[in-house]
Amino acid sequence: MNRKLRMGMIGGGTGSFIGDVHRKASGIDGMIELVCGAFSSTAEKSISSGKALFLPEDRCYGTFEEMILKEKELPEGERMDFVSIVTPNHMHFPPAKMALENGFHVVSDKPITLTLDEAIELEKIVKKTGKLFALTHNYTGHPMVKQAKALVDHGDIGNIRKVQVQYLQGWLSTAVEQTGQKQASWRVDPKRSGIGGALGDIGTHAENLVEYITGLKIDELAADLGVFGEGRTLDDDGNVLLRMENGAKGTMSFSQIALGEENNLAIKVYGDKGSLEWHQENPNQLITHWLEEPVKIYTPNGNNLYNEALNVSRIPAGHPEGYLEAFATIYKNFATHLMAVLNGETIEKPDYPTAKDGVRGMQFIYAAVASDKNNAAWEKVD
Amino acid sequence: MNRKLRMGMIGGGTGSFIGDVHRKASGIDGMIELVCGAFSSTAEKSISSGKALFLPEDRCYGTFEEMILKEKELPEGERMDFVSIVTPNHMHFPPAKMALENGFHVVSDKPITLTLDEAIELEKIVKKTGKLFALTHNYTGHPMVKQAKALVDHGDIGNIRKVQVQYLQGWLSTAVEQTGQKQASWRVDPKRSGIGGALGDIGTHAENLVEYITGLKIDELAADLGVFGEGRTLDDDGNVLLRMENGAKGTMSFSQIALGEENNLAIKVYGDKGSLEWHQENPNQLITHWLEEPVKIYTPNGNNLYNEALNVSRIPAGHPEGYLEAFATIYKNFATHLMAVLNGETIEKPDYPTAKDGVRGMQFIYAAVASDKNNAAWEKVD
Amino acid sequence: MNRKLRMGMIGGGTGSFIGDVHRKASGIDGMIELVCGAFSSTAEKSISSGKALFLPEDRCYGTFEEMILKEKELPEGERMDFVSIVTPNHMHFPPAKMALENGFHVVSDKPITLTLDEAIELEKIVKKTGKLFALTHNYTGHPMVKQAKALVDHGDIGNIRKVQVQYLQGWLSTAVEQTGQKQASWRVDPKRSGIGGALGDIGTHAENLVEYITGLKIDELAADLGVFGEGRTLDDDGNVLLRMENGAKGTMSFSQIALGEENNLAIKVYGDKGSLEWHQENPNQLITHWLEEPVKIYTPNGNNLYNEALNVSRIPAGHPEGYLEAFATIYKNFATHLMAVLNGETIEKPDYPTAKDGVRGMQFIYAAVASDKNNAAWEKVD
Amino acid sequence: MNRKLRMGMIGGGTGSFIGDVHRKASGIDGMIELVCGAFSSTAEKSISSGKALFLPEDRCYGTFEEMILKEKELPEGERMDFVSIVTPNHMHFPPAKMALENGFHVVSDKPITLTLDEAIELEKIVKKTGKLFALTHNYTGHPMVKQAKALVDHGDIGNIRKVQVQYLQGWLSTAVEQTGQKQASWRVDPKRSGIGGALGDIGTHAENLVEYITGLKIDELAADLGVFGEGRTLDDDGNVLLRMENGAKGTMSFSQIALGEENNLAIKVYGDKGSLEWHQENPNQLITHWLEEPVKIYTPNGNNLYNEALNVSRIPAGHPEGYLEAFATIYKNFATHLMAVLNGETIEKPDYPTAKDGVRGMQFIYAAVASDKNNAAWEKVD
Repeated sequence: MNRKLRMGMIGGGTGSFIGDVHRKASGIDGMIELVCGAFSSTAEKSISSGKALFLPEDRCYGTFEEMILKEKELPEGERMDFVSIVTPNHMHFPPAKMALENGFHVVSDKPITLTLDEAIELEKIVKKTGKLFALTHNYTGHPMVKQAKALVDHGDIGNIRKVQVQYLQGWLSTAVEQTGQKQASWRVDPKRSGIGGALGDIGTHAENLVEYITGLKIDELAADLGVFGEGRTLDDDGNVLLRMENGAKGTMSFSQIALGEENNLAIKVYGDKGSLEWHQENPNQLITHWLEEPVKIYTPNGNNLYNEALNVSRIPAGHPEGYLEAFATIYKNFATHLMAVLNGETIEKPDYPTAKDGVRGMQFIYAAVASDKNNAAWEKVD
Repeated sequence: MNRKLRMGMIGGGTGSFIGDVHRKASGIDGMIELVCGAFSSTAEKSISSGKALFLPEDRCYGTFEEMILKEKELPEGERMDFVSIVTPNHMHFPPAKMALENGFHVVSDKPITLTLDEAIELEKIVKKTGKLFALTHNYTGHPMVKQAKALVDHGDIGNIRKVQVQYLQGWLSTAVEQTGQKQASWRVDPKRSGIGGALGDIGTHAENLVEYITGLKIDELAADLGVFGEGRTLDDDGNVLLRMENGAKGTMSFSQIALGEENNLAIKVYGDKGSLEWHQENPNQLITHWLEEPVKIYTPNGNNLYNEALNVSRIPAGHPEGYLEAFATIYKNFATHLMAVLNGETIEKPDYPTAKDGVRGMQFIYAAVASDKNNAAWEKVD
Repeated sequence: MNRKLRMGMIGGGTGSFIGDVHRKASGIDGMIELVCGAFSSTAEKSISSGKALFLPEDRCYGTFEEMILKEKELPEGERMDFVSIVTPNHMHFPPAKMALENGFHVVSDKPITLTLDEAIELEKIVKKTGKLFALTHNYTGHPMVKQAKALVDHGDIGNIRKVQVQYLQGWLSTAVEQTGQKQASWRVDPKRSGIGGALGDIGTHAENLVEYITGLKIDELAADLGVFGEGRTLDDDGNVLLRMENGAKGTMSFSQIALGEENNLAIKVYGDKGSLEWHQENPNQLITHWLEEPVKIYTPNGNNLYNEALNVSRIPAGHPEGYLEAFATIYKNFATHLMAVLNGETIEKPDYPTAKDGVRGMQFIYAAVASDKNNAAWEKVD
Repeated sequence: MNRKLRMGMIGGGTGSFIGDVHRKASGIDGMIELVCGAFSSTAEKSISSGKALFLPEDRCYGTFEEMILKEKELPEGERMDFVSIVTPNHMHFPPAKMALENGFHVVSDKPITLTLDEAIELEKIVKKTGKLFALTHNYTGHPMVKQAKALVDHGDIGNIRKVQVQYLQGWLSTAVEQTGQKQASWRVDPKRSGIGGALGDIGTHAENLVEYITGLKIDELAADLGVFGEGRTLDDDGNVLLRMENGAKGTMSFSQIALGEENNLAIKVYGDKGSLEWHQENPNQLITHWLEEPVKIYTPNGNNLYNEALNVSRIPAGHPEGYLEAFATIYKNFATHLMAVLNGETIEKPDYPTAKDGVRGMQFIYAAVASDKNNAAWEKVD
């Protein structure tokens, strides 16, 4: 491959939080360039957003349909290779489906779709079309999350007995959605967000992280969802009991009304030989405990790491990498895979979340809502 | 009062962890002296323990019954004023009852008794006899716990919406009770520990802390208890959903198989104006968040504290106080009350846990066990 | 400006640490694209490096001289706008001078040059040519460093009395330069590094940070340099007393033999109204103390920040930004300035380090070496 | 020994900070009882203080001379065994000398005396009289300081190359001595404090800590003292370059005008095999770094400790011990030694600071003042 991969973006117009994140993250490793976009709901706005990104006007489209169809007709040396979908949840499935069916690979923000049915269908489309699909569960891109997973995979902490995972934010503590804040308004709207509020927005990250690190599925859960913000219909808080498939037990807590919390995603995993602890807000530390040794703290590119962690560290120890870098790792691993595919090569173990993880996330949302409706009775996650 | 208060100890022979703690804690503030004890199950061992504590042989008794009866016959200028009960749980009720009924005040370790029935009876005896009774929920003695409670009481953090409390230890990760470790062996034995394992031993501290700081009762709970240690019958782990009386929701997690955790009691309380966070292992910080201000961290004898916190700080800011000092504060407040009583004075708001808190702890244990038996169905705590 | 700025890189071939950093950092904000490079000492290696970066072969040059001359002849719509110099210290001045004198703007790694004389000459060339020059003292790009500077500038912490700054690394604790490690070998070589070892490599960052945040110049210093690594001639450790121009006093410590330290740059500034503390390894916190208020901790995009800090935060609070992002801020502010210039506009207060800061850094190096040679006698920094 | 040791206190009347600390600390381990005191400058005040401590009036003396002479005449079964001197610096030497020469052992607060000459004389008196003398450099009593020293002594961190020690307080940031604050007023008065201000009050703790942990003497120093508080004549701030006897280099910083700092004593020691870091405000952690292993954190009664640390931990891991407990360890080790002596036994390696450490502290003060007067020229510490 003697060129960068070409990305077309769907959503992410001027002022978008997550669109900007995707652009920055995809740019860090120098493997991807943004070549076109359907950034907004009107052609005019889309062009305005695109110009600010130095795109030519004729690659700024008014709708994703237009973009997919027109790009498809461009010569191979020019047209986009994949789309990046950064719209609200209800607009994940339609462009993903259309892009895949028209020969484009897809990177999509999470949750994968609005409904579980869509998710299952999308997974099938991915299989059928043979195109690549990455879901940006970005927190799994951190070196210390990779190290955590590796410590589990290599058996270092033994059989897992207990997990604690939380994802706490406080930005919906007041009714910001009534002030016209765009990030808030679609998230509290079931039509655009789906049946989960905080549950879908951040609970799915917690679910993904715990299953990713432990390699264990949540077998069943008991969820007590809360709706604290005045006038809201979707959950803005949740407390969940977990039972993992191997008999381990645990808790999950997520919230967007945990006043003062910024982006406090954290996980603890206790085995019968060791335990580990990771905090997203201080991501460059992995705290571990052992039966007969002192506490050990791992750092990116520090001593005694597994290759899984070393592979995703970009800079020397002590030079903190953060949110964008972890996000970039999802793009990098996707790009590496896609370049291999375009070169006619294969890759042994592509390391990024896929449609399967997306389906899993939707199953989690549906199980939690079902449990909550039944006064937090146990519900299987499948 | 022109003399120190005289304490007689029940339990706490040589090698005891908690007996030593009670002795050190009661000694710190110079208001209490140990004058006698029934430290062990035989007179010989008791004398041996007492001698190591520089007690005269004739004040070292073979049984608590003997101690109570003989001390009662000593002249007022000499006999003990109160007993301190530091035995395993099954031996809390009998000496407490006998001491109270024979005119002695009581300080008792927690949980208050082996069973809920005993607890209710003991509370009645306390009322009937009019004697003072303190329960050593020692963690409420920390200056920063007092400040946390004061922030809630003064309305600073507003209406509480969410709580998280955990008490995690790892010392029962392996079957230490099979190695002859005394601390472990009685704790895993229902006859001596009661129907709760980790639940009674440390879960009650978590329950007490959350109700103490928030001023709210746990209305109902859903408890999923775990028994991970081989051969155990009592829980060594538990995850609990909480619903507070005001509609707040939360989680509690406690464990003695959380490998590597030392004594990780921690609490977070989220209101609609502010939130707070306290960690027992780093007790000299109270972390608070606010809607429109930066994170603020309070420290003992630091800036902007409420009197409730200032009153229990012994030394200047930056000089860490720890476990023993907080424990000592329970004794100090009890001693201050008792001295007032002995001087024929009254005290406005004695600040230490009482039999009422002990009953509450037993209700919590019983509710959690009942819920767990019913597959973590909701159970009222009353 | 309707296109990205075009960057040509000097140095930074495959395997380079800092070249990779400059590329990633310059790419994050989507304002700059790499269009050419003289990456290595031979054309062959340079081409190989360039190809891995998806550059066309004819834009990969064998020498910086060739690059500057050939790019100059390309049409304006195609040729590079500025060079980024990422070579070892002895190769900073020659390409910077030539680029400036041939009409190209310059971004250069620090220290600005090999010698103080070169630095002074380069500052003159910058003035004479009127081209822009940015020096990548990257740590000043952190939001919390901006907030620290703003707290000082707005008078919040009052008159500064005391400073502590340190930059501690441990990677030269053993003689890694003898193992063929490239990063180490040039840094311990006076011909390529200059008269300072750790002093020039990291001491200058400490000097820059303390002068940047306090707005005060170091008036004089007393430096005790150490050479601990066997066979080394340049300092790998240093301890320095500081006297600031306003009468404040302080210490600086830097080291590359502080075993186990990764990249521990940290600063404390004490005023007579408040004080502040920042740690590079945990860059998303600014800890502040006040006469009559509790400790306050600021976070990027958190509450109560000055615009100076808000302006350089890319993502919401709690989403950690790190080393690359701060580095990117230098590029972003340089690019913003350069775009304005190319558009014929002016900018009020360009916010990035310039040749003046570079001269200051060299003065610091020379003062410290002179002091050290005189048994740590006081030496003026000018 | 079948009784507690009997302590007489000199100084420490009601309202005294350090007297209260000595009383609490000496009481924790149940080996010492306070039996008499010359607490204040008048008999009346002394009696009032003594009564509040439940002492009989006839053991409350108006002067230390009276106490020493009268106690000497009491029968052995009754009179005090040792004195505890907790007066301002100028009143350390006279009572210490008189007590020793009248057959009493001595515990004294630091610095040992007002002048170096007195210190040297006192050391001789200790030797001549054969009485025990303990100096309360309390910070060496922490388990993690013992572990730090043990790691050095056992060779684990190799040859020491670099040290950093600081003792930062902010309580003299404003002129509190002019508000009648007693703690402040004598500390800024050369007649009562000696030639060092912050230097003697807290700098000596820093000096003691660095020599205690490293086992190395400070060979020479270069001190730049500051006087920031209006109207002060003694230093309230100091920055010092250190050269240790083995060639290691380092810095020391102490201050009482470091606004917002509470009691920030901290030390880092870098060897060629490992390094260690300890912070008094978070005393239950010892952070260590290693060439080829991750960061390891030791905790009191945690895994992998040396006996030196285990010996001084009172309670299980995770139950924080603080300032009083470390202080108590000095008393405990002194009491253990004294009991042995009174029993006619010997003890192999008594572990508490002695008159020798006191002389060392005075040499440090004198060297620092001499260096400062000579514009921070190097001065030998001897």
